[in-house]
This record gives sequence, structure tokens and C-alpha cells, in this order.
Amino acid sequence: MVEKKKKFSEGILFTDFYQLTMAQLYFKNGLHQKEVQFDYFFRNYPEYNSHQAGYCVACGLKPLVDWMQSACFKAEDVEALAAQKGSDKKPVFEADFLDWLSSAGDFSSISLEAIPEGRVVHPEVPLAVVRGPLAMAQILESSLLNHLNYQTLIATKSCRIKEAGRGNLLLEFGLRRGQGRGVDLGVRASLIGGADFSSNTGISYELGFSPKGTHAHSMVQAFIALGYSELDAFSAYADLYPDNCIFLVDTINTLSSGIPNAIKVFEKLACKGHKPLGIRLDSGDLAYLSIQAAKMLNQAGFEEVKIVLSNKLDELVIWQILTQIQQEAAKYEVDPGRLIKRLVYGVGTNLITSQGCPALDGVYKLVAVGGQEGLRPAFKLSEVPAKTSNPGRKGIWRLYDRRQKAVADVLSQEGEDLFKEGEQVLHHPSQEKNRVIKKENVSRVEGLHREIVKEGKLVYDFPSIEETRDLRKKDLSFLDSGVKRLINPHRYHVSLSDKLWKLKRNFIGIPIPHRKSIGGDNG
Amino acid sequence: MVEKKKKFSEGILFTDFYQLTMAQLYFKNGLHQKEVQFDYFFRNYPEYNSHQAGYCVACGLKPLVDWMQSACFKAEDVEALAAQKGSDKKPVFEADFLDWLSSAGDFSSISLEAIPEGRVVHPEVPLAVVRGPLAMAQILESSLLNHLNYQTLIATKSCRIKEAGRGNLLLEFGLRRGQGRGVDLGVRASLIGGADFSSNTGISYELGFSPKGTHAHSMVQAFIALGYSELDAFSAYADLYPDNCIFLVDTINTLSSGIPNAIKVFEKLACKGHKPLGIRLDSGDLAYLSIQAAKMLNQAGFEEVKIVLSNKLDELVIWQILTQIQQEAAKYEVDPGRLIKRLVYGVGTNLITSQGCPALDGVYKLVAVGGQEGLRPAFKLSEVPAKTSNPGRKGIWRLYDRRQKAVADVLSQEGEDLFKEGEQVLHHPSQEKNRVIKKENVSRVEGLHREIVKEGKLVYDFPSIEETRDLRKKDLSFLDSGVKRLINPHRYHVSLSDKLWKLKRNFIGIPIPHRKSIGGDNG
Repeated sequence: MVEKKKKFSEGILFTDFYQLTMAQLYFKNGLHQKEVQFDYFFRNYPEYNSHQAGYCVACGLKPLVDWMQSACFKAEDVEALAAQKGSDKKPVFEADFLDWLSSAGDFSSISLEAIPEGRVVHPEVPLAVVRGPLAMAQILESSLLNHLNYQTLIATKSCRIKEAGRGNLLLEFGLRRGQGRGVDLGVRASLIGGADFSSNTGISYELGFSPKGTHAHSMVQAFIALGYSELDAFSAYADLYPDNCIFLVDTINTLSSGIPNAIKVFEKLACKGHKPLGIRLDSGDLAYLSIQAAKMLNQAGFEEVKIVLSNKLDELVIWQILTQIQQEAAKYEVDPGRLIKRLVYGVGTNLITSQGCPALDGVYKLVAVGGQEGLRPAFKLSEVPAKTSNPGRKGIWRLYDRRQKAVADVLSQEGEDLFKEGEQVLHHPSQEKNRVIKKENVSRVEGLHREIVKEGKLVYDFPSIEETRDLRKKDLSFLDSGVKRLINPHRYHVSLSDKLWKLKRNFIGIPIPHRKSIGGDNG
Repeated sequence: MVEKKKKFSEGILFTDFYQLTMAQLYFKNGLHQKEVQFDYFFRNYPEYNSHQAGYCVACGLKPLVDWMQSACFKAEDVEALAAQKGSDKKPVFEADFLDWLSSAGDFSSISLEAIPEGRVVHPEVPLAVVRGPLAMAQILESSLLNHLNYQTLIATKSCRIKEAGRGNLLLEFGLRRGQGRGVDLGVRASLIGGADFSSNTGISYELGFSPKGTHAHSMVQAFIALGYSELDAFSAYADLYPDNCIFLVDTINTLSSGIPNAIKVFEKLACKGHKPLGIRLDSGDLAYLSIQAAKMLNQAGFEEVKIVLSNKLDELVIWQILTQIQQEAAKYEVDPGRLIKRLVYGVGTNLITSQGCPALDGVYKLVAVGGQEGLRPAFKLSEVPAKTSNPGRKGIWRLYDRRQKAVADVLSQEGEDLFKEGEQVLHHPSQEKNRVIKKENVSRVEGLHREIVKEGKLVYDFPSIEETRDLRKKDLSFLDSGVKRLINPHRYHVSLSDKLWKLKRNFIGIPIPHRKSIGGDNG
């Protein structure tokens, strides 16, 4: 058996086993070098129990490409595969295939086009297109899906939470309840989707961000258990961090102890010329308590001090808190608009796990196969019509109307000029529905794909996380507000061009290609 | 700013930032070496939308201890912290604290007791107890929670799915939709909880397991697109893997194409003395199709061939499929019992993400603090009574009745002999309820904790995954079947001993300890 300490999980063996047995099958039948195209797309927006997203935020591309560029079959990987026995106790993998993996088993033959990270994206639209030889394109599937599904899911959730919080500061706190080491790239996706900072120290440093945090209940509790008081704990904290003080005020009692003690310390800090930063509320009725906290802080002259909310927040909880503040703050002589502006959100579990919908249903489908004249369309003969992929090489477009709003994403055949004829018939991807859109009503036709990797070589300059966030913000500004609704959003149109639709119909209509006998170069 | 390529996320900086600012506070006030105890426990069983677990399966201990033993503040970690600025643009961490982290910032002073992996566990019962100096015990919190919360969650889900499938072979297929790199330790937890194998190749090899799989739709589709047929694809696969053939039969049409083609190939294999392994159903009505598949396979003489089910399975879906088979198989002259025995389950997304409940609510609470006479009980002054921790050093026991069934987990004060007086009053941990249990009705009192790490030194011999699974199976056999129900399980009793309950009452009742002025050695 293989030695235990080798880190097989980091490299190219981060894949499903059947990819390797299929790759050997292709190799043995001389099909492994056949040029193919796989499309990555998701079929449905995330559904979070009571609500559903109206858009997603693409994410995961750079970590995927980093992985692709370092992944290859190293000697120890090939050794592990060589030791793998089948149910007949014989080796599963044969020497010629393993030799081929050793020499050609990397992604240097793979090309990748994709929609950049941070862009708003929709179902059925290929977010990534992989072209290259069949065997390696197949082996790539599992890791590609893992990267793009999870990170797009989390960037989307983060964006929803950021939008619910009306753009206020959002801190990611998910390390402790997230799904193992997924939290690290989850933090990156959160930062792209909407979070400003994370409490996760290591990954923040790797990404060039400052980690953020306040303090825990255990700090106050430790001081008390050692014979001190909550006020002592706050005072000690303020002595050490006079310009970085955010006090968690609910360890004993928020209104009778925590906030009064925080104010006492803030007053001392202010006397010494320091600027108190905030308080944090982590339990109870966060809307009611934030109104009372604002009132007390205002009366003490601390109108600028932030109020950080945490404890099981998600987009709906934040929405509810803000609604309650708007309805009730005035009763307590607190201006609701000013209170809402000073709120900061610390979101843990529900962001990092995408509570309500812990997985995006993205798939990786074979849509074209190499023939004499280049890639020919291929499709899956599914028993479910909606699951039939859109075949072949395609153009991927976003249409903007005269208001500069995005109104449809369109899949066409490659190289189509959508409005050559002055108008375009846009078809629903699976239902018998279409509409005609005239050229004069379209202000812009934007190609969404970028060439990322060309035969293994990175040809794309990845933007920084800050630039990626700008892409997200810009795309959000192009969305109709109905599409951005948290609940029951307006359905954004994704359509097929008339030509692509006809090609697909032809394919579904015609019989399966004539049978040939099989026999490859290595068979 | 810190260089980008350093892997800070692997080491000790896999922690929330506030742990580090609190650690500096303790250091500056001379409290960092105070001996403390933190308990790790969860408050509620996972709730999966429509159903709730009646027990959990402990998991994550070995990966946590592996991490603890390698994690320390390396020069690059300290350098990154030294570069960290606060909102006043001044360094957050001071030189004396960073020096201390460099020299003493590891877990060599930490002791850990825990319930072993694979054991059945319940809310409120400490699964792990950490003792050691305050600063490092605090820094440990985030990673400990990440490891134990996620892995216990997944082992529990895996166990439920295994139980729903009546112990049949269970394959973990979650890599493609799982939450990033969380899937790797998720696989380990799945294997401990109930899965027999995983498709995830790298982590399987690391754990000494054979990865498993079948083939994908894309294989059949590639053959068809290249001018061959489904039968050609199956034949080619059988030529290469004559003793490892499991055919995915739903690419074109399950009943009219896939199964007949599989049977043709199985017949050829059988003639040559090979044993066909199975077929896989990945779409449609899996109960109906498995009945029809069994009928067709039986008629062709392949009564031993396995039927692998996949596609959005979880414990309820499996339960529903088995119920439907039991009600309908006989109509088609298929023996339901024999069909159920030949089923194999391939479970992806819903296992690896713990669909319906993507996080366990485990917490890490300060329960004792060092005084003159060793550790003294401490507790959180929560406004929610149920959130008040059970203070101090404790005994953790499982009681078995005369039928050898586990009937209660009991928390006592340390060193208590529960049945010295012939009976014990067992109190509900938060409600005003108790019951008396007599010594003669208890067949066994089992201590659940093991000493794992003693001042940084591993003193526990971790069992293999196979041995860990045996612990799980044994514990399940001790559970009443009502506790194991998938829906609305009978509530297992977790209780406090009379002495511990009185201690807790005293603590909640007495005023906050008298205030002392603060001032530490380093303050």
C-alpha cells in the first residue's frame, strides 16, 4: 500500500477516479488525443429554501488556473495508480497508459475561455469552455467543477448579503463553522462577492488583505473569572488598542452593563484624543438593541461609533433588521437612516456555507468533438429535454438596451453577427418560446468570454480582487432592480440565437450517427 | 505588504484574527499563562429542514491533533503579524508579544481530552476538553471548531445515509459540488460515518483506501459523437476492465437501450469467465427503474449484478426508494428483499455538504480558570439560561441499562462516583426537570473521555479508520431504535449529576466576584 504521508490530495489526483479509468479507455482505443470541447454552466440559480437568487457572481477561475498550471502526474501519483488493484486483484492501469500519463499527463494541451470572475452570470450560459484532447479534458472535470461551483456559490451569497446590507461594511466570520478547508477559497469568494474583510488570518494575508475582528465573550469572561470586571476587560483592551476598540457588549447584559461600560471607556479614550470605533451586538433582538445602543451612544456624544451586528445573519435577517429599524427607531428618537448607515455586519456560518443552498448545480458537458473539419457539435441524448446541452462552439453575448440595462444573455453559433439582419429571434433554451429583438433597441452587444489559457499557456492578466469587485459593482448597476430582489426576483432572459436553436433542433431530431466498428491505435 | 506566495493558511494563522489580539491583551496583562479549561460541545443535533438527527458521530480529532502538532508561529507568520497595521496606521502587535509568539507560540503546553472519533455523541456533552495557558488555548479555538464541527457534521450525515441504505455499500461522490477543499477531510469523515469508499482519488490514497467509480455519460456520448454506439462504448470498456464493469445505462434510454446493451456485454463477459459487476442508474424514477432493471437482469441470468443508484440521494430519498420497491416490486415479479440487497448507493452533494444543515453549531466555552488551588469553575453570564455553560472540570459518563442499551450521557463533577449512594438524581441541563436512576438498573457506567494530548505530547494511539468504524457500529447497536429514527427521533437523555447541577445553580445565583484592580507583569 501507498505510504501515508504523501499529499496526493493537493495535485492532479484531486479528481474522481472514473476520470482516470475513462482516460485509460480513451488511450487504449486511440481516442485520447481527439480534440473536444466541454462547457461548464449551471442550470439553476441557487434556491435558499424560502428564496432564490436572480443572478450569480462568477468566481473560482484564478484558483482553478493556478491549480491547472501546477497539476501533473508526478512519479508518486503514477506509482499510486500503478499499485491500484481491481476487484480481480490485478492492476487497473497498464504500463503504456501510465507511461503516457508520466510524459503527457498535464494540462499543457488545454485551452480555456471563460467569463471573468466578479461578472454577474446566469443559468445555461457557459461560464467556462475547455478545449483540448479528450483524456486530459476529462481528467480536468472534477477539479474544475469543485472550484467553480463552490466559489461561484459563495460569491453569490456574499453579494446578496452585501446588497441586503445596502453596501455597508461586511466582515466574513465563517472559519469556525465552515466546511473544513473550503473556508479558505470561500473567503476569497466572499471578498469578491461583497465582503470587505475576513477574520480568517492566514488566507487574508495570502490575499494581501488585513484580517479583521473584535473580541470574544471569553475575554470578558476570563477577566471576570480572574476577579476583574467587564469594565476592567474593556479598559485593558482600550489601553492596548486605543484606536482599534470595538467592544462586544452582550457578555453580561447589553443595555445595563455592556453599553454603559463601553461608553465609560469611550469617554476616557476621547479625552486622550482617540477615536472609539464601535460596539458589537451578538445576541438578542438585534434591531431593538441597535436602536437602544444608538440612543445611548448618541446621548453620550458617540454618534460616529459603529454598531457591528453578528449572530446568524443572512440576507433575509439583515433585511428584517433594517425594516424593523425603519419602523421603530423614531419611537426612541433615533434617526433610522443614520442608524442604518452606521451598521456593520459580521456574517459567519450562513455566508461561508451558503445556508439554504450549500451547492451550485454546475455541470461540465461534452458539446463538441473533433472531426475532419475541426470541432463538430455533440450533445447528450438526455431523456430530459431541458438537460440537452447546447452543442458546439458558441458565441456568448450580453445585450444592453437603450437604458444601458442588461436585458439578455444570448448563446449563438460561433462567429454570428446577431443583428446583421436588423433583428434577432431569441429562443428560450428549452421551452417553445421566443421573442424578436430589434437592432435599434440594443445599445450594446458585449462578448462575455475571455481567452484565459491557450494550450496550457496563461494568456490572461488576472485582475486584482479590488478590480474584480469593481466588475461586480458595475454589472450590478446594469441589472434591473427586479432581478436583484432577494425574494421572487424577476427572471433574467437567457436565450439561444435563431441559428443555434435550429442547430440544436436538428440534432435532437436526427437519428444517432451511423455505427462504425471500433478499433484504435493502442487498442 | 506581505509577499503573496507564502502559504499562511496552512499553519497556525488558520485562526480568527481576534484570537491574536486577545492573546496579546492577555500577554500584556500578565494573564497569558493562566491555566484555563475550554469545553467543546454542540448545543443541538443537526436539523435538516424536514428532519433532525437523534445522535451524532464524533469526528475530526486526528486531523485536528495532526494540525496542532505541526502548527507554530514561524518567522514568516510573525513577520506578517508585525506588518499588520491598525486603523491608526500603527503596528497592532508589539515586539515583546511577537517575541513571545516566536519562542512559545505553539501548542506544546496544551492538553486535550476527547471522546474518540466514531463514537455516537449527543448535545451538551463536551466532545473535547482543552486545558492549558489562556493565550494558546484561545488561539486554538478557531481551528478546533473548524475541524470538529465540520467533520462531526459529515460523519453524522454519512451515518444516517448508511443506516437508510440498511448497511449496503455506500460510495462518496461529492468532490464536484462539495465546498472546495473541505471535501478532502469530508471524505475522511464520510468513511468514518458510513461510506465504504470515495471517488476522490487523492485523499483516498492518502487514507490508504481504494478510490471507486463507474464511468460518466460523457464516455458514451464521446463514442457516439465519434460515430460509434453505446454498445461500442460498453464493449470497449468491458475489453479493458472485464472484471470491473459497472455500466451507466441512462445516457440514451435506460430501459430500451442502456440495460439491453449492458446485458449483451455481460453475456460476452460471462462466456469468457468474467463476473459482471453492475449497472448504474443516474436519472428518472430510481425505484421504478431499479425494479425494471432487476427484472431484465434476472431474466438474463444476472441476479448477482449490482444496481448502483445515484442522483441527488440522501437518507430520505433512499428510504422512499426502498419503501416504493417493497410496495411495488412484486407486481413485476421481482423479489423486493433480494433487490434491496443488491443496491449500492453513490451519494454526492447531499452527503458532502450535509444538505439541509450545512453546519454543526459546536462552541468552545471557557469553563474553568486557574486559581490558587488549581482550576476553578467559570461560566458565561448569558442572558439565555440554556446558553450557560456547565462549569469546571467534569466527569463524562454513559449509562447503560440492563438491556445493555445506552440510556443517558451524564456530566458530573470530576471524580464523582455516580452511584455511591445507590441512586443518582439526573437533571435536565437547562430545564427544571429531573429523574432518579437506581444503581441496580444500570449495567455499566462508561467514562467517555480519553486523554489524547498531554502538554503537547500525543499520548493516544489513534485507531485506524476501520477500527473507528467499528466503534461507530458498536455504539449504534447500543442505541434504542427510536433514537435512530430518521424523522422525529426519540430524544436521548443528557443529564447533569445532582452535584454538578447544584454547582451550576450556585454559580448562576451568586453575584459577580468582587472587583480587583488590574495590573499584570507585562501591562
